[in-house]
Amino acid sequence: MQKKRGKRIGFVPTMGALHEGHLSLIRLAKKHSDFVIVSIFVNPTQFGPKEDFKKYPRNLKKDAALCQTAGADLIFSPSPEEIYPKGFSTYVNVENLTQGLCGASRPGHFRGVATVVSKLFNIVQPDAAIFGQKDAQQLAVIRQMTKDLDQPVKIIGAPIVREGDGLAMSSRNAYLTQEERKQAVALNRTLLKAKQMAKSGQLKADSVKRELIRLLKHDAPLGKIDYVEIVDNATLRPVKVIQKNTLLALGVKFPSARLIDNIVV
Amino acid sequence: MQKKRGKRIGFVPTMGALHEGHLSLIRLAKKHSDFVIVSIFVNPTQFGPKEDFKKYPRNLKKDAALCQTAGADLIFSPSPEEIYPKGFSTYVNVENLTQGLCGASRPGHFRGVATVVSKLFNIVQPDAAIFGQKDAQQLAVIRQMTKDLDQPVKIIGAPIVREGDGLAMSSRNAYLTQEERKQAVALNRTLLKAKQMAKSGQLKADSVKRELIRLLKHDAPLGKIDYVEIVDNATLRPVKVIQKNTLLALGVKFPSARLIDNIVV
Repeated sequence: MQKKRGKRIGFVPTMGALHEGHLSLIRLAKKHSDFVIVSIFVNPTQFGPKEDFKKYPRNLKKDAALCQTAGADLIFSPSPEEIYPKGFSTYVNVENLTQGLCGASRPGHFRGVATVVSKLFNIVQPDAAIFGQKDAQQLAVIRQMTKDLDQPVKIIGAPIVREGDGLAMSSRNAYLTQEERKQAVALNRTLLKAKQMAKSGQLKADSVKRELIRLLKHDAPLGKIDYVEIVDNATLRPVKVIQKNTLLALGVKFPSARLIDNIVV
Repeated sequence: MQKKRGKRIGFVPTMGALHEGHLSLIRLAKKHSDFVIVSIFVNPTQFGPKEDFKKYPRNLKKDAALCQTAGADLIFSPSPEEIYPKGFSTYVNVENLTQGLCGASRPGHFRGVATVVSKLFNIVQPDAAIFGQKDAQQLAVIRQMTKDLDQPVKIIGAPIVREGDGLAMSSRNAYLTQEERKQAVALNRTLLKAKQMAKSGQLKADSVKRELIRLLKHDAPLGKIDYVEIVDNATLRPVKVIQKNTLLALGVKFPSARLIDNIVV
């Protein structure tokens, strides 16, 4: 309806449990559009059978209030049955991009993400959609999908929002124990050191990766390294030499939560 | 542009080599819309490596003239590189519906169909799209995909158009030898007999299927039966008892061409 009135629709798809990172997306959407729609949907198809779909935090009332303060005009909060009715059987798959990084330890995750985002784009019909750079692989997958399927939506990446000590904001940070929370700072700190290495001329991906792993093991002993990758930011293919638009990305499994972080050089 | 002017867009996706069947789709689109777009694109991703992608008949000039006589307002005829640029890697998969019937002997075929139709829908932005009932499985797949992905397009099925002797029109009929062409009539004749059987009370799918196979083998000895299936017209799941909306579908491989036909009881 708003679209028919000639307004530009900005769209921020979320799983709720909103934090300052999400709110920054809504504010950015506001700059790129006249009417901002936020979806809140904990999408079952992007969770693995052993992942935290059931315990994922849900608080629609609080989320709705936060959306409003950030300037959202409409919240779309469908039920799982509305999005996946009986007999549902169509999936969107972005091949290649989804094999490595998070995709390796979360098979089917990006199939779920691409499918639900396709659906949401068709329902909401946005002119622009905002995704956080924190899920760098997700952003790359959505960019590729939108381009490949000719979806008429402009994809805008938004910078990572961090806590005071540098930890990337995430709804899953709430799962962390006090000790894990302290060690979790290592993700960002390690990435910053790697960026520093690259800036001071150490451009061999292998060496930087080794150092990243060493630092992570030392500073976050409670965490199990899921991946440390140095890849091209668009294709997500590993690079040998760090250059412009190289993405340093890592995933670490703490006993209470799996965290990810990244930095683009 | 036409859409913005408030016109309803009707869409007929084709692979060209147009015949009277296609023209009937264009005429039907005309009834459901104000502006009819026909796409002509021989879609590489829906052909198997040993199939007839290269030799598939192409005659854009003749097709364009036929489109015009049937009342099309615009022809969209992209190149393979426009539709599948370097790095393309997103595919739409309708699971379940694509395992049986044609899908069994053409793995990947419906993945290619669903992907290109999704793209064309996003490019053309039609209000309604017309597909022939001849490709009954394709029609079911597109209906399911459109519903599952919330694509804002009304899918309209159009009746099969046949030659004087009952052979379903197909661009691939041109491949047939004289002898194969004679025997090809058996597909429709056999389906009509099966429908007659059902009407006269023989509703057991097994018995009807056996009789279909016997008749086909007898009347089309040059053809190798690819499949004979009796299924629900929407879910494509095999039924035991023929009832309303049961689809009788068959595929026969002649040495020069693979033909399909079907009838809904």
